[in-house]
Amino acid sequence: MKAAYYEGHETIRVGPCAPVAPGPGEAQIRVSHCGICGTDLHIFHGKMDHRVRLPQVIGHEMSGIVESVGPDVEGFRPGDRVTVMPLDPCGDCPACIAGHSHICQRLKFIGIDVPGALQGLWTVPSHTLHRLPESLSFELGALIEPVAVACHDVRLGEVKPDEYVVVQGGGPIGVLVALVAQSAGARVLLSELNPFRVALANDLGLRALDPRSADLPALVEEETGGAGADVVFEVSGSAAGAETMTRLPRTRGRIVIVAIFADRPPVDLFRFFWRELRLLGARVYEHEDFERAIQLADSAALPLQELITNICPLEELEWGMREMEKGGEVMKILVKCSDK
Amino acid sequence: MKAAYYEGHETIRVGPCAPVAPGPGEAQIRVSHCGICGTDLHIFHGKMDHRVRLPQVIGHEMSGIVESVGPDVEGFRPGDRVTVMPLDPCGDCPACIAGHSHICQRLKFIGIDVPGALQGLWTVPSHTLHRLPESLSFELGALIEPVAVACHDVRLGEVKPDEYVVVQGGGPIGVLVALVAQSAGARVLLSELNPFRVALANDLGLRALDPRSADLPALVEEETGGAGADVVFEVSGSAAGAETMTRLPRTRGRIVIVAIFADRPPVDLFRFFWRELRLLGARVYEHEDFERAIQLADSAALPLQELITNICPLEELEWGMREMEKGGEVMKILVKCSDK
Repeated sequence: MKAAYYEGHETIRVGPCAPVAPGPGEAQIRVSHCGICGTDLHIFHGKMDHRVRLPQVIGHEMSGIVESVGPDVEGFRPGDRVTVMPLDPCGDCPACIAGHSHICQRLKFIGIDVPGALQGLWTVPSHTLHRLPESLSFELGALIEPVAVACHDVRLGEVKPDEYVVVQGGGPIGVLVALVAQSAGARVLLSELNPFRVALANDLGLRALDPRSADLPALVEEETGGAGADVVFEVSGSAAGAETMTRLPRTRGRIVIVAIFADRPPVDLFRFFWRELRLLGARVYEHEDFERAIQLADSAALPLQELITNICPLEELEWGMREMEKGGEVMKILVKCSDK
Repeated sequence: MKAAYYEGHETIRVGPCAPVAPGPGEAQIRVSHCGICGTDLHIFHGKMDHRVRLPQVIGHEMSGIVESVGPDVEGFRPGDRVTVMPLDPCGDCPACIAGHSHICQRLKFIGIDVPGALQGLWTVPSHTLHRLPESLSFELGALIEPVAVACHDVRLGEVKPDEYVVVQGGGPIGVLVALVAQSAGARVLLSELNPFRVALANDLGLRALDPRSADLPALVEEETGGAGADVVFEVSGSAAGAETMTRLPRTRGRIVIVAIFADRPPVDLFRFFWRELRLLGARVYEHEDFERAIQLADSAALPLQELITNICPLEELEWGMREMEKGGEVMKILVKCSDK
């Protein structure tokens, strides 16, 4: 079996790995596909070296087949087609006790804090498994994790039919948030700088534009009869996005922070007061978001296949990272991890 | 009759005024007391000159007696003891139509955009009137407006019994938010720099401290078993407050923006993502907040009388402004506007 190891200093090495036999409550999965996430790129850039133990197998957007299970595993057996919700909460911190185990205060994120899916055989706690329907391909199965992020964001944003939604940032997560919101009946406007992504989003049936080519607040005001947007999803993580996000919503409108902001941008807190705006952070997902994502993907309600711009072998992982880094003509890149 | 006129350039002139006869749907009130609000100080400092038509009678925290009513006024008659909810919404903007008329997009705030209560006889739309019980003094009646602000903030913050609440800023509004939250059953910690206000708040039965004398995030974490605060009210309007507010809440905790921020401070949006925090702006009040404030004041549930540090005649309004400006030993200053 092979694995892709992050070795620090923007270095990925592909080499042999020894499969880990599943212990009690664990399952070993033959990984089919694994997507490259923005977080993986972040790790590659050394920005999460404080969390990663080198060398580390990364990756967490995957699909595969259960190879074997350890003792005390119920509900899954070899041959089951699965994806993984890569969260391992402690179960006894205040967040877990309050029912928010997905944002456990001692959360282990599988693929960052412990070894990830970019390998042939991967052993994980069985509580992370979600079954994939026979009708869903392994390629789409590897998209369930980011679709679940979007389902979580749209659920927490309480998007309702006919609401006017703006999504700032049209990478894979932004596009998925826009698609999930649109499938919930919202009127969606996607704002993105990269012309390849703008064109792809429009091809997917979204309405996307470059915010430099339009006065976004004026456009939203005009299209909502002077009211403003019901919900704004901030997925760009940019200071410009943090500036625009408060100018778009209606009175009591919502802003959902999906992006990971590296810096602390200036924020117009007066506007929150003036319009009684609401802002909420949304991080990862809960099991119900995974189930919803699987349902959506399997119903063909979303044009997910068109999001996959590349499928490459493990050896080309670094190439994929570099394409994402330079804002190339890629959206979602999948890595084929085994023959299954 | 006399009135206090703001004439621009930090100038207040007290002089005669001609009473305005109430037109259809209007009531004329003999004003008893009128509190000086931070907003009045803001106007005095020229920061709202874009909204104020000079010379302007300001003031909006008042109590009084109905002197006369115009045609088409139902439910009120001369002799009724009242206070005023000083909002005059347009009724047909998107905010009004959505049911948020208190933050109407063309709101006239009575006492800023049109003449206020710092005069002997004041004419207002009768829809602004709220009846004061016989058992409530005119002094406390003049506190209903700021108490209603606090009721609105606590209601929107959804404060529940036994929740841990931090209030940042211990001026009149901060202290009232703390008192209303405490009366709702919350454990409240008030953070304030001014030693006079810290001492007064402690005398009122609150727990107040100077944040420079303690590590506030560490204290809150310790007192909540590592969880963090349920709700943080940001009433300081300072960059330091905007920095601390995100460090205090538990996962999915709430931050309520009560303060009017003149600048756009840096905000830790990452923390919103990481802990799925929620932030909401709260502005003025709705009629139900006025009713709740009257009920609370009349039940003697809050030590409101002790908040009133000074009662002065109209001629001393500017003195009151200067005391507030320099952070003197004042909390709520009332102005006596007529003999009633």
